[in-house]
Amino acid sequence: MIRGLRHITPYVPGSQPADKEIIKLNTNENAYAPSPEVADALEAFDSHCLRRYSSLDQDVLRQALAEHLAVAADQIVIGNGSDDVLSMAFLAFFNDSRPILFPDLTYGFYKVWADLYHITYREIPLAADFSLLEEDYMTANGGIVIANPNAPTGLCKSLKEIEAIVKANQDVVVIIDEAYVNFGGETALPLLDKYDNIFIVRTFSKDAALAGLRVGYGVGSPKLIAVIKAVKNALNPYNVDSIAENLAAAAVKSWDYYEQTCQKIIATRERFAEGLEALGFRVLASQTNFVLAEPPRVSAEALFTYLQSQKIFVRYFPNAERLRNYLRISIGTPAEMEKVIQAIQEFL
Amino acid sequence: MIRGLRHITPYVPGSQPADKEIIKLNTNENAYAPSPEVADALEAFDSHCLRRYSSLDQDVLRQALAEHLAVAADQIVIGNGSDDVLSMAFLAFFNDSRPILFPDLTYGFYKVWADLYHITYREIPLAADFSLLEEDYMTANGGIVIANPNAPTGLCKSLKEIEAIVKANQDVVVIIDEAYVNFGGETALPLLDKYDNIFIVRTFSKDAALAGLRVGYGVGSPKLIAVIKAVKNALNPYNVDSIAENLAAAAVKSWDYYEQTCQKIIATRERFAEGLEALGFRVLASQTNFVLAEPPRVSAEALFTYLQSQKIFVRYFPNAERLRNYLRISIGTPAEMEKVIQAIQEFL
Repeated sequence: MIRGLRHITPYVPGSQPADKEIIKLNTNENAYAPSPEVADALEAFDSHCLRRYSSLDQDVLRQALAEHLAVAADQIVIGNGSDDVLSMAFLAFFNDSRPILFPDLTYGFYKVWADLYHITYREIPLAADFSLLEEDYMTANGGIVIANPNAPTGLCKSLKEIEAIVKANQDVVVIIDEAYVNFGGETALPLLDKYDNIFIVRTFSKDAALAGLRVGYGVGSPKLIAVIKAVKNALNPYNVDSIAENLAAAAVKSWDYYEQTCQKIIATRERFAEGLEALGFRVLASQTNFVLAEPPRVSAEALFTYLQSQKIFVRYFPNAERLRNYLRISIGTPAEMEKVIQAIQEFL
Repeated sequence: MIRGLRHITPYVPGSQPADKEIIKLNTNENAYAPSPEVADALEAFDSHCLRRYSSLDQDVLRQALAEHLAVAADQIVIGNGSDDVLSMAFLAFFNDSRPILFPDLTYGFYKVWADLYHITYREIPLAADFSLLEEDYMTANGGIVIANPNAPTGLCKSLKEIEAIVKANQDVVVIIDEAYVNFGGETALPLLDKYDNIFIVRTFSKDAALAGLRVGYGVGSPKLIAVIKAVKNALNPYNVDSIAENLAAAAVKSWDYYEQTCQKIIATRERFAEGLEALGFRVLASQTNFVLAEPPRVSAEALFTYLQSQKIFVRYFPNAERLRNYLRISIGTPAEMEKVIQAIQEFL
């Protein structure tokens, strides 16, 4: 019998099947390749550099992001994916005895980090139509986490609505997780000038098509960044490797390319949503690179299983009571989405 | 006033100056480039793959390591550098109310993680000659962490001595940090067949010349690995990027190359230690890619400052009382170490 072992229920990510034949629409990856400049940066990278440690503070990437986002470099912290940034933020910002608040239907990891770090939390039910009500977050709390746009609903709050929450909670940190913001959401970046309690988290996994590179970042007041950087340096100071920093900086500098791919994905999403609606689905108004949709006549589970048999992988949440009738489908290329529509048509 | 902010004293790594002219011997990086097979793997990597998430469980790398180390793949967990593996191990294994034990002079991060995760700990003073005494670890505790070889002393315990500690503490996890083991240390891997409470941590940063790639791993009983994997999946499941996994696997498969570079570094170390001793230094018997040495006549601080003025960076620990007369000098190429000897000669 070994004492001291921690037994925890982990997050369950979507499966990552190796089969290249499948249409993989289950983890909200980007439908397009990274920018040509990322490919160039990879080609130019000299493996000899790898014998040296990566940079301690990711100056090159922070500088590129600072220019891109029009913030100061000391308002940015970089992490090994936004999961790393969020995990550090929970450790750094949520040390109050009051419970932190987040919606009942949101990124499933918030609850897992709270458990892991023994942070008390309260899940606030979204409204029946899955919308988030600002007034629910105007109560005593130890911090707030809101994904905007939200996952897996795809719904987005306006800047004004987010500001109301940040403004009413200036004595705690409000994390806004903007993983999907560039697919039609409204960013909270303008609030950085007015509030020092907001921490905005972004990732290169979705809009920048670099899920396999593991880079994310947080933006906040220099005061919050100093706090989270101390935690980062007490955890894993070299948390971003040299190649990843380099390629992510190349992505930022070639953002024109990504503007175009985001627009293509948005256009495909709208067309796909119309296709689903024409088949009788209820489709939530998504501002992300996925849609949450309720099939007509058949159960979500039956459709999920059928699609999988047709080598089309989407996400089904059997353990979330309120989501049991829905499927979350990532937006792939127009050709892929056309095949999905056809497969669904055949099944219905 | 924002509530809930964590204020923590971080680990202070050696500086990472960008100047390419300097002789950089302050962070124990490898003197040689990664293997040609690593360069090939980098060249062969298609950036288009990056739009997909990296693997969840690093099967490719775990399989390569399993063959290399002659253990089962389910005895291995991969992390974003051994710092990540150690940090996860602290969270996963040290949840007992009794204090964990580690030496007073060892990797400075152990104390920082314990603080970060509110784990009580007791630092056991090394003997006057910096040796670690097994009997000091035969007392009630919540876990043990031993770097073997130890840093910054460079001293190594035998397998028999490590076994005595593991055997006497079968009710807790004993972490053996083998970051430097391939520079002449004795590995504890043979103990895996007899004890399920040992967790061995390794890194690609030192012997494999991949500090900039951020890959490390832990080896233990399937029981311990299952516990730490749940923590990993509750923290950051995709903690190793696709390129890093690929290149690290290439490094494992080309280990013959690294056997040679390790032997070269050992030979350079022995020669350098003799050179220092000829100058009157007291040099600890290192089994690592660095030496800890006490200069004659001058203070360590004065020599540190002089070397820095000559663009030679070594490590000085002004805040560790017992190390104040010592410098830790990484082993570079023979030409670099020759220059260091010359510079010291000029100063003395």
